[in-house]
Amino acid sequence: MYSIEKKGNLTISEFLYRSLKDDILSGKISPFEKLPSKRAMASSCGVSLTSVQNAYDMLLSEGYIRAEYRRGYFAEDLSENIVSPTKKPLVKTESPRPQISTEDEKKSLFPFSVWSRLMRNVISEYQDRILDRMPIEGVVELRREISRYLYRSIGISVDPDRIIIAAGTEYLSTLILTLLGRTKIYAVEDPGYKKIPTLYSLGGAPVRYLPTDLEGVIPESLFSSGASVLHISPQNHFPTGYVMTISRRQKLLSWLSASEERYIIEDDFDSELRLSGRRIDPLMTIDPTGRVIYMNTFTSTVAPSFRVGYLVLPEKLSSILHTKLGSLSCTVTAFEQYTLAKFIGGGYFERYLSRLKAAYKKKKTQIVEILSDGNTAKHIEILPSVTGTNMLVRLKDPDDCPKVIGTLVEMGFAIPLLNFCKNPSEEYLNTFVINYSVIDENDIKALKGDF
Amino acid sequence: MYSIEKKGNLTISEFLYRSLKDDILSGKISPFEKLPSKRAMASSCGVSLTSVQNAYDMLLSEGYIRAEYRRGYFAEDLSENIVSPTKKPLVKTESPRPQISTEDEKKSLFPFSVWSRLMRNVISEYQDRILDRMPIEGVVELRREISRYLYRSIGISVDPDRIIIAAGTEYLSTLILTLLGRTKIYAVEDPGYKKIPTLYSLGGAPVRYLPTDLEGVIPESLFSSGASVLHISPQNHFPTGYVMTISRRQKLLSWLSASEERYIIEDDFDSELRLSGRRIDPLMTIDPTGRVIYMNTFTSTVAPSFRVGYLVLPEKLSSILHTKLGSLSCTVTAFEQYTLAKFIGGGYFERYLSRLKAAYKKKKTQIVEILSDGNTAKHIEILPSVTGTNMLVRLKDPDDCPKVIGTLVEMGFAIPLLNFCKNPSEEYLNTFVINYSVIDENDIKALKGDF
Repeated sequence: MYSIEKKGNLTISEFLYRSLKDDILSGKISPFEKLPSKRAMASSCGVSLTSVQNAYDMLLSEGYIRAEYRRGYFAEDLSENIVSPTKKPLVKTESPRPQISTEDEKKSLFPFSVWSRLMRNVISEYQDRILDRMPIEGVVELRREISRYLYRSIGISVDPDRIIIAAGTEYLSTLILTLLGRTKIYAVEDPGYKKIPTLYSLGGAPVRYLPTDLEGVIPESLFSSGASVLHISPQNHFPTGYVMTISRRQKLLSWLSASEERYIIEDDFDSELRLSGRRIDPLMTIDPTGRVIYMNTFTSTVAPSFRVGYLVLPEKLSSILHTKLGSLSCTVTAFEQYTLAKFIGGGYFERYLSRLKAAYKKKKTQIVEILSDGNTAKHIEILPSVTGTNMLVRLKDPDDCPKVIGTLVEMGFAIPLLNFCKNPSEEYLNTFVINYSVIDENDIKALKGDF
Repeated sequence: MYSIEKKGNLTISEFLYRSLKDDILSGKISPFEKLPSKRAMASSCGVSLTSVQNAYDMLLSEGYIRAEYRRGYFAEDLSENIVSPTKKPLVKTESPRPQISTEDEKKSLFPFSVWSRLMRNVISEYQDRILDRMPIEGVVELRREISRYLYRSIGISVDPDRIIIAAGTEYLSTLILTLLGRTKIYAVEDPGYKKIPTLYSLGGAPVRYLPTDLEGVIPESLFSSGASVLHISPQNHFPTGYVMTISRRQKLLSWLSASEERYIIEDDFDSELRLSGRRIDPLMTIDPTGRVIYMNTFTSTVAPSFRVGYLVLPEKLSSILHTKLGSLSCTVTAFEQYTLAKFIGGGYFERYLSRLKAAYKKKKTQIVEILSDGNTAKHIEILPSVTGTNMLVRLKDPDDCPKVIGTLVEMGFAIPLLNFCKNPSEEYLNTFVINYSVIDENDIKALKGDF
């Protein structure tokens, strides 16, 4: 069906995934059309069944196709979405923002000796130039490294001039409010990361909480909210860890394109910690309006005391920033910026992320093993998950909670999902967030001994 | 008249100054009462004429007494001011915020080798503890050093718990707006430091510009402004460098005490660079209402890229901060905070300030010498000045501008005071701000050669 010789540098799975996706998006494969069975596809293309399996899984998880029991795979209907994505997808999967602290783990894996060597290098190399005044957007050395990193990790190319460095989410939100205004209504995800609505509220803007289901923000709630700014984490919703489906993402983009006044803040917090599969493309790259602001921070991925975050601004906002805020200073010292630039540029950042991910993966496997014990497994459903530091577990019968879940709750490692909701939804009843990344070897032994 | 044996550790001048001031404030010396002549005072106390002269000069400059030509010294009438200051004074003098950059000078005097040694020490000593999460108020090591420094330099004792560290004026203003609210009207000084109203405006609060004369903000304009928050720099007004008179300060405090809704932000920016005499006591120490917030920054005194400022909050606001913002993080990295703590604690900060002041004093002397040239001197008035980095010069006849002033304007060292005004006032016509601190040796030679 597809000529594998055209795959170039791609893996076979990746090539199949892209080819199928392009055909679904272009309409070559019609909505609801049945796809060849995996076996048929494998034999027609002359590839292994595993490669096809991987490609179909990616399409499934990103919402391009649907599996029907005993019937096979069908293309989803994406036609109602106005916005034609020049790039890509969206998904059901997960990863979280640490509510319970994951600091100890991170700290023990963080290459502090490298970091301190880089700090010393910055002192020797830059000397008293680290004292010089900086423009509001931060030093170019760091913005350039972030730009390259974004290209390497999620394939977007951003002019370093559109990157603005600031002191953590605290000041990023101040910049956003200053750029977009405080009279607009800011909509956030419910459940979600509480700090975001707190910062917008403290910043003087009205905030609305939008209910989300397992595909992402419910579009109807957005349309009726009166909001002009939507703050979402399509790649890595907190704390469910779901990735927003492509159809949801497209609906949000069509909301965005309906008015010049609207903006989306794409918060990519902790998406680096996705444990398997590719990271999806940022909304920013499939947005035709130029009104998506990308936001991320190194506070979580480097160190909690390390107050460095950044925005990638669309062209227009970038020039507004310079006009309106040009007289202000960057809130992060030059010294930290040069050090971080060396840390990313030297490849240490990505190596550290790999180490972190390997550690989290190992823990997850151990926890899944404990939860897969016969007695436990029949009472719970482990929701699918690819990213980060936690996972969701749902009780099949609310009156029948396995002992291990009770113990995890007692130990502070399992938290009812409802606790993360402003307006508790039925959908989230009987579901627990298990923050496995903070469970240490001793805890695991204790959990194993118990059951 | 006063028993000098009671002076304790004070100098004779300081002892006389304090004794006289206390008697004026307590009413022991009545308003308008004539003081003993300097000679009479010296002989009655058995001290030198110079000591008395110094004490009288301080009282004069701080507005406690008035000199009448050929008649002598008289106590001022401070009775109309409701607020009884448990501590002190206020003045006419000056110092400025660098508009033109003073960076080069500062950089060459900054002990970078010490600074980099301290950075290295922090790395070795704290190791990966510099990565730990910090509370919103910053690390206790730095807050403790700031508290001690405030005690040493301006004699106030502040519990380190009431000090909040933040990333420069940018984030200090965000904290203030969050604590006090954005619906209040914020009043600022006109002329003044432009960044302040800019930050309040960008932060979403309405701003009013209050006219100031050489004593400080004109109280009537404050009362009629509808403002609830007043941002002033009583110690060191920018760019005139005037110190607010005690009578003005008391009027502002009585405005403050008239409503629980009112707050004063006391911005002590650059007051460390006062070139002679003591720094006056902060408004915070004579405020009976507990609604004065003290604010200062190390960005100007340490280095422009060094984004560290702080607030000293009154008790009540300090607890509001912890309740309302307790979930946020400090915007300055722990590493910078530890380094600065060592810099202050080791005495390096104050030594650096002394070096800076000595350099500025020398430059000022050179510029005053140039301006005192017969031809120039008869056309201008050099306004009195004790602090910082610039001085004011007024033309006696606007149509007769000495050549040297023209040259200073051309070189960018003299700027019309009107340029710093939102609403130009007649009082400030024909007056130039001379930013002498950035004039280097070559410029001085050029200026000298010219005239």
